[in-house]
Amino acid sequence: MIIMERGATREQIQQVLNEVTRYGVRAEISNTDSTIVIELVGDEKMIPVSAVTSLPGVKAAIQIETPYKLVSREYSRYVGNSLENLKIKVGDVVLGNGKPVYIAGPCAIESETQIMKIAEGVKQAGAHILRGGVFKPRSSVHSFQGLGSIDWKKAEEALKWLRRAGEQFGLPVVTEVRGEQQVDLIAEYVDILQIGSRNMYDQDLLVAVARKKKPVLLKRHFGASVEEFLSFAEYIAAENNKNIILCERGIVPVGKGKNFTRYMLDLGSVPAIKKETYLPIIVDPSHAMGRRDLIFNMSCAAIAAGANGLMIESHYNPEEALVDGSQAVTPEELGAIIRACNRIYKMITPKNNLN
Amino acid sequence: MIIMERGATREQIQQVLNEVTRYGVRAEISNTDSTIVIELVGDEKMIPVSAVTSLPGVKAAIQIETPYKLVSREYSRYVGNSLENLKIKVGDVVLGNGKPVYIAGPCAIESETQIMKIAEGVKQAGAHILRGGVFKPRSSVHSFQGLGSIDWKKAEEALKWLRRAGEQFGLPVVTEVRGEQQVDLIAEYVDILQIGSRNMYDQDLLVAVARKKKPVLLKRHFGASVEEFLSFAEYIAAENNKNIILCERGIVPVGKGKNFTRYMLDLGSVPAIKKETYLPIIVDPSHAMGRRDLIFNMSCAAIAAGANGLMIESHYNPEEALVDGSQAVTPEELGAIIRACNRIYKMITPKNNLN
Amino acid sequence: MIIMERGATREQIQQVLNEVTRYGVRAEISNTDSTIVIELVGDEKMIPVSAVTSLPGVKAAIQIETPYKLVSREYSRYVGNSLENLKIKVGDVVLGNGKPVYIAGPCAIESETQIMKIAEGVKQAGAHILRGGVFKPRSSVHSFQGLGSIDWKKAEEALKWLRRAGEQFGLPVVTEVRGEQQVDLIAEYVDILQIGSRNMYDQDLLVAVARKKKPVLLKRHFGASVEEFLSFAEYIAAENNKNIILCERGIVPVGKGKNFTRYMLDLGSVPAIKKETYLPIIVDPSHAMGRRDLIFNMSCAAIAAGANGLMIESHYNPEEALVDGSQAVTPEELGAIIRACNRIYKMITPKNNLN
Amino acid sequence: MIIMERGATREQIQQVLNEVTRYGVRAEISNTDSTIVIELVGDEKMIPVSAVTSLPGVKAAIQIETPYKLVSREYSRYVGNSLENLKIKVGDVVLGNGKPVYIAGPCAIESETQIMKIAEGVKQAGAHILRGGVFKPRSSVHSFQGLGSIDWKKAEEALKWLRRAGEQFGLPVVTEVRGEQQVDLIAEYVDILQIGSRNMYDQDLLVAVARKKKPVLLKRHFGASVEEFLSFAEYIAAENNKNIILCERGIVPVGKGKNFTRYMLDLGSVPAIKKETYLPIIVDPSHAMGRRDLIFNMSCAAIAAGANGLMIESHYNPEEALVDGSQAVTPEELGAIIRACNRIYKMITPKNNLN
Repeated sequence: MIIMERGATREQIQQVLNEVTRYGVRAEISNTDSTIVIELVGDEKMIPVSAVTSLPGVKAAIQIETPYKLVSREYSRYVGNSLENLKIKVGDVVLGNGKPVYIAGPCAIESETQIMKIAEGVKQAGAHILRGGVFKPRSSVHSFQGLGSIDWKKAEEALKWLRRAGEQFGLPVVTEVRGEQQVDLIAEYVDILQIGSRNMYDQDLLVAVARKKKPVLLKRHFGASVEEFLSFAEYIAAENNKNIILCERGIVPVGKGKNFTRYMLDLGSVPAIKKETYLPIIVDPSHAMGRRDLIFNMSCAAIAAGANGLMIESHYNPEEALVDGSQAVTPEELGAIIRACNRIYKMITPKNNLN
Repeated sequence: MIIMERGATREQIQQVLNEVTRYGVRAEISNTDSTIVIELVGDEKMIPVSAVTSLPGVKAAIQIETPYKLVSREYSRYVGNSLENLKIKVGDVVLGNGKPVYIAGPCAIESETQIMKIAEGVKQAGAHILRGGVFKPRSSVHSFQGLGSIDWKKAEEALKWLRRAGEQFGLPVVTEVRGEQQVDLIAEYVDILQIGSRNMYDQDLLVAVARKKKPVLLKRHFGASVEEFLSFAEYIAAENNKNIILCERGIVPVGKGKNFTRYMLDLGSVPAIKKETYLPIIVDPSHAMGRRDLIFNMSCAAIAAGANGLMIESHYNPEEALVDGSQAVTPEELGAIIRACNRIYKMITPKNNLN
Repeated sequence: MIIMERGATREQIQQVLNEVTRYGVRAEISNTDSTIVIELVGDEKMIPVSAVTSLPGVKAAIQIETPYKLVSREYSRYVGNSLENLKIKVGDVVLGNGKPVYIAGPCAIESETQIMKIAEGVKQAGAHILRGGVFKPRSSVHSFQGLGSIDWKKAEEALKWLRRAGEQFGLPVVTEVRGEQQVDLIAEYVDILQIGSRNMYDQDLLVAVARKKKPVLLKRHFGASVEEFLSFAEYIAAENNKNIILCERGIVPVGKGKNFTRYMLDLGSVPAIKKETYLPIIVDPSHAMGRRDLIFNMSCAAIAAGANGLMIESHYNPEEALVDGSQAVTPEELGAIIRACNRIYKMITPKNNLN
Repeated sequence: MIIMERGATREQIQQVLNEVTRYGVRAEISNTDSTIVIELVGDEKMIPVSAVTSLPGVKAAIQIETPYKLVSREYSRYVGNSLENLKIKVGDVVLGNGKPVYIAGPCAIESETQIMKIAEGVKQAGAHILRGGVFKPRSSVHSFQGLGSIDWKKAEEALKWLRRAGEQFGLPVVTEVRGEQQVDLIAEYVDILQIGSRNMYDQDLLVAVARKKKPVLLKRHFGASVEEFLSFAEYIAAENNKNIILCERGIVPVGKGKNFTRYMLDLGSVPAIKKETYLPIIVDPSHAMGRRDLIFNMSCAAIAAGANGLMIESHYNPEEALVDGSQAVTPEELGAIIRACNRIYKMITPKNNLN
C-alpha cells in the first residue's frame, strides 16, 4: 500500500504505477477524502521498498501482513478511510447499519405460484429481501439440483419468476451462483449474487462474480477458519468490489457421535469478524441447524451476537418443499422471529460496541 | 428398564432384582407417582427379555438404545416422570427454571482479599453463585496450577476463603475438582462440584464426584459431540445423582488459520440439548471467547439461545489476574451483561418452546 | 438402477427410458457382457418402483442408497461388472494396478528451462508422470497464483512448456484446472486434468472437466469426509467418465496448538476407499506434510497403506522455488523414495487383499 | 533451566535452589556427564533472570518457551544430554531403538483361560509385550467396563491372570489405569502403566501414575494436537520419570458423512513427533481403524512412517470377544503383520533419518 503526498501530481502517480506493475503486482488508486492511496493486489513482497519510497510524491509505503488487508479495519485506518461499518444499499434496503435485515424465501424455486406465494408471505412477515435457489449445490449428483440444472431455458424462467415476485412485493432478490457459466445469466435478474458455502474457496468464481459489480453474499465454507473466510472475501474486494455481505452458516461438527444439529453455528465468529472488518455479516440459522424447532432461538442468538441480518428459509408448507423442507419455517413463524429479533437488536444496541 | 404392574409386591420386585443382577447389571428402583420402575445400569442387552417379562408383577420391559437414557426426556416419558425441566436447588438459588442464573468469580483464587472483593463485586452486579478455581487444569505443567497444587494446606485455606466469601455475600460456591483425591476435601467446602472440560471423559472422577450427592457442574469437553456429553452426564446419573448442570464452553476451532476466538462456542447445542434432556444447561462465554470484548454479545446470544444461566469470569482488575485475565470482565461490565440478559430472557420466553 | 431381461428389445428399453425421464431423472444405458443395465442419474426416489417394474422386459429395479453408486464396488457387483480394480491408461502408464505410479514435478511452472530440467530429473529418478502448476489456487489473493493468472497468453505458453517437457522425456503430463474457463485450454495440452483440494465441492467445474473425457485426478478437500469425496467423484462418473484418479492430500488438523505438519494425512482412508470403490487412489505427501524431511517416511507409509501411486513435488533447487519450496524434494531424494516404495509395494503385495 | 559452572560447589547449587523455590517453582538437579543442570518445573517466567545469573557458580540461565521442554530434543541439546533416542527397557524388551516392538493381546481380559490362550498365540506370532484390559473406559455407562469395574477382588484376580500369562510366556505386561484409585493395585502387577486416550488430559492421574517410576504408555487424546500430546507427556517427565512411550491411536474424523474408519490415524504425527522428542512412539491401528480388514495395511504403514512399535488387539476368536471384537486379529494374522513389518523396518532403516 502506497500513500502519496497530499499534492502528488498525476505524473508522480503514474510513475509509481509503472514501477510496481513491473513486479507483476496490480495497482488500484483509491481516492479517499484525505489521501490518494495506491492499493496493491498481488505479491507485494516482490517489490523492494526503496524502489517505491524513493519516487517523488510518495509519502509512505506500508506493508500489511494480513492476507485480507483490503477488507480489514486495520487497513482502513491506515488509508484514512472512514472507520464506520460499510453500508451496502440494495434497492431501498441498507445492509450494514441500522436495523437488522431479513432475507427469506424457499430453498429452491419450484414454480411461479410457489415463489409468488412465499414472497407475499415473507413480505408480510417483515422480510426485506427475497431468496430462492435456482442452481442448488448438492452433495449427491442423485439429488434434485434446482430447476436451473435441467436446462438454461428452465433456469431463465425460474429467474424471471424470482424477479417478478420480488418486484410484485417490493423485495430485492438474491440467488446462488454455483458455476462461472451461470454468472452472466443470473446477474441479469438478481440484485445480490450469492456464493454458497461449498464454493467459498472457488477463487475463479469469486472473481467472475465480483466483476459484475453487484453486491455479493459470500457464505463461509463449513471447514474454513475466519482468516480463510476473510481471505477469500479479499478476492472479491481485489476486483474493486467491496459490497460484500459475509454470511456465517455453520461449521462441520466435531467429535464422535450425534450433535443433533446439522452444522455447528459459530456465532462467536460474528462479533470477532466485526472487529476485524467493516463488512456486514449475517447469519443463516436454517442450514446450520437443519431443523425448524431451533430456528427461533438461534435467530435471536445471532442478532444478540451482533449479526447485521439473517437469512432464513421460509415456505408456506415446509413439508412439501422439494429441498430441505425440514428446516423451513412458515411465514407466521418468520414474523414472530423478526419481531423478537428487532426487539433484541434495540436492547443490545446501547452496549453493543461492535464497530 | 422394567415397569412393574401397579400392585406389584415387594417380593415380586425382589425377584426381578435377583434376576437382572445375575447378568452383571445394576438395578435401581425409581418410585414415581404412578409406577414402580426398575432402572438398569450396565449392559442390559445381556438379559434375555423373556427372562424378565415372564416374571410375576412385571408389566413391561423396555430397552432404550440411547447411551444416555437416564437423563433423556424420552426415558422420562416412559417411566411416567414429569416432563418438566429439572429444577436444581443450590441454597436459595434455583437452576433450571425461571430466571437465568449467573455464576461469576475469578478464574483462580489468589488471596482472601481478592476473593472477598470479587464476591462483593459480583453480588452487587447481580450474580447468584460464586466461582473460584483452587485446582486449575493447565495445558502446561510449567503454568500456574492454582493454589491447590502447592500443597493440601494451601488448598484447604483457599477453599475456606471461598466458603467465607460465599457466606459473607449470600452466594453458594462452586469450584473445580481435577482429581479423585481432591473430591473429599472440596466437597466439604462447596455447594457445587465442577468437572472441567479436560476431565469430562474421566469416568472414575465423575463417579467419585457423583457420590457426594451434591449438584455437579459438568463442562463439555472441547472435542466432544453432544451425544458423548450426555453419555458422560449419564455416568453421574447412574450413581443416582441427577442434579447435573451441563455447561457448554466451546469446541476446538476447525480450519487452517486464525479464528480470533479461543474456542468455537456451539450455541446451537443449547436448544438441541434442551430437547434431548430435562437437565439445565448453562454457557461459559469466557473460556470460549478468551477475550473480554466479545463477552457481552456472546452472553446475550447464549440466553437468547435458551441457556439456563451463564458462568462468567470476573475480576476487579483483570490485568493483574494470574490466570486468564484477558478474558475476565469487571463487576461493572458483569452488571451490564446481567441486566441485558435478563431482559432478553423475558423477551424470548413467550415464544421459547424449549421444555 | 434398472436391470433388463436378457432378451429385452430396443422398444422395451426405450419405453423404460421414456418412463424414467418423465420424473426428471437422466438415464444411461450400460451394456455389460451379461446384462443391459439402465443407470439413473438424479433423484430416483421420485420414481414409483411399480411404474418401472411393471414394464415389459424389466427384470428388476434396484435402489442403491449410497450417493456414490456409480463408482462403488457394490453397484459394480449388481450390474455384473468386473469386480477388479479399474485400470486407467495414460499414455504408456497404467494407473490402478501393477506397480505404483509416481507423479512428480514442481508446484508451479516458472520457465521452460525450469520445467525441462525438472522433467529430466524426475524421469531419471523413476517418475512416470510430470506435474506442474499453471493456475495455482492460493489462500491469499496477494500470493503468486501461477503464470496462468497473469494472462491467457502466458498460460498457454506455460502449458506448451509442460507439454514439450513431457514429450522430451516420455512423461504424460497433468496440471490443475481451477476454473471453468480454463478447461478448454488446459485439456488441449495435458493428459490428466487435476481438480485441486479447494475445488472438490465445485460440482460445475467437475462436470465441465469430466466432459473432456480425459482422466481426472480429483483431490479430496481438506475438510471432506470419505463419503463426500466419493460423492463428488460421482459427479464425474455421472458424465460417463469413470477415469477418475482419487488423491488423498491431508485433512485440516484438529486440536489446539501446533501439529508440526501442514495437514493431517488420512492414510487410513486409502485402504478404506479401496474397499468402497474400484477407482485407484494415490497420495500426495508433499502438501500434506508441508516439509521435506517427512516425505520419505510418509511416501513409504502411503504405499504400505495400499496407495496406487504418489504425487510428489520435486525441484532441483527447492530453496529457489516461488511456491511451496520448503516441501519439495530433489530428484536424487525422489529416486531414493521411489526405490524404497517399489520394494515396499512388492513386500506387501502377497498379503495385500485390497481389491 | 540453569546451567552451573563446571566446578560449582554443593553450597552454590543449594543457593540457587533456595532462590528459585522462593518463586513457587520446583527444581530438580540433573547431573549429566558434562554439566550440572537445574531443571525447573513450574512458571519459571516468575523468576527474574538476574536473580539467578548473578549467583556464584551459575554459568547460564536459559528459558525455553515450549510447554514440553523436558521431553524435547531441543532441551536435551542444551543440557548436553545424549542426542540419541531414549531406550526404554521393559524386562528383556528394549523400546525405542533397534527392531520394532509389538504389543498384543485382547481388548478386555475375560478369564484366565482366555488370556493364557491369547498370550500363547501372540508369543508364537512374535509379539514382545502382552496387553489386556481390566478397567475399560467406555463411552456408555451401559457398556461392559471390564472385569475391574465389578469389584476390587475381581480386578485383582484379572491382574493376576495377566501377570501369570505374561510370566508363562516370557512377556512383560501392560494394562490401562483409568482412575487414581487404581494406580497402586495395577502398579503391583504390571510392567507398563497405560493412560488411555480419554484420560490424556487428566493431569492428576498422570502425576499419580508417573510416581510409580515404571514406564508409562501414554495414548494421544482423539482431539489433541501434537503439541498438547507432548505437553501432557511433560507432566510425567516433570515427576522425574522419562520412561514414556507415546502412542498415536487416531483422531476424531472431520467432515460430514461416513469415513469408514473409526478414527483418523494421524501417521504424519509419527515422524513429526520423532523430530521433536527423543521419546519412542508406537501406533495402535486397532482402535484407529475399528475394523480388522485394514489392520495389515495400516500396521505396515505405521512402521514405514517410523513408528517404534505397534499395539494390536488380538484374540483367537474375535467374534466372541466381549469388547471391540470387530477390530481384533487372530494370532495367525498377527504373525503375518509382524513379519511384514519387520521387513519394512529393515528396508527403510538406511534412509530413515529419524533420530
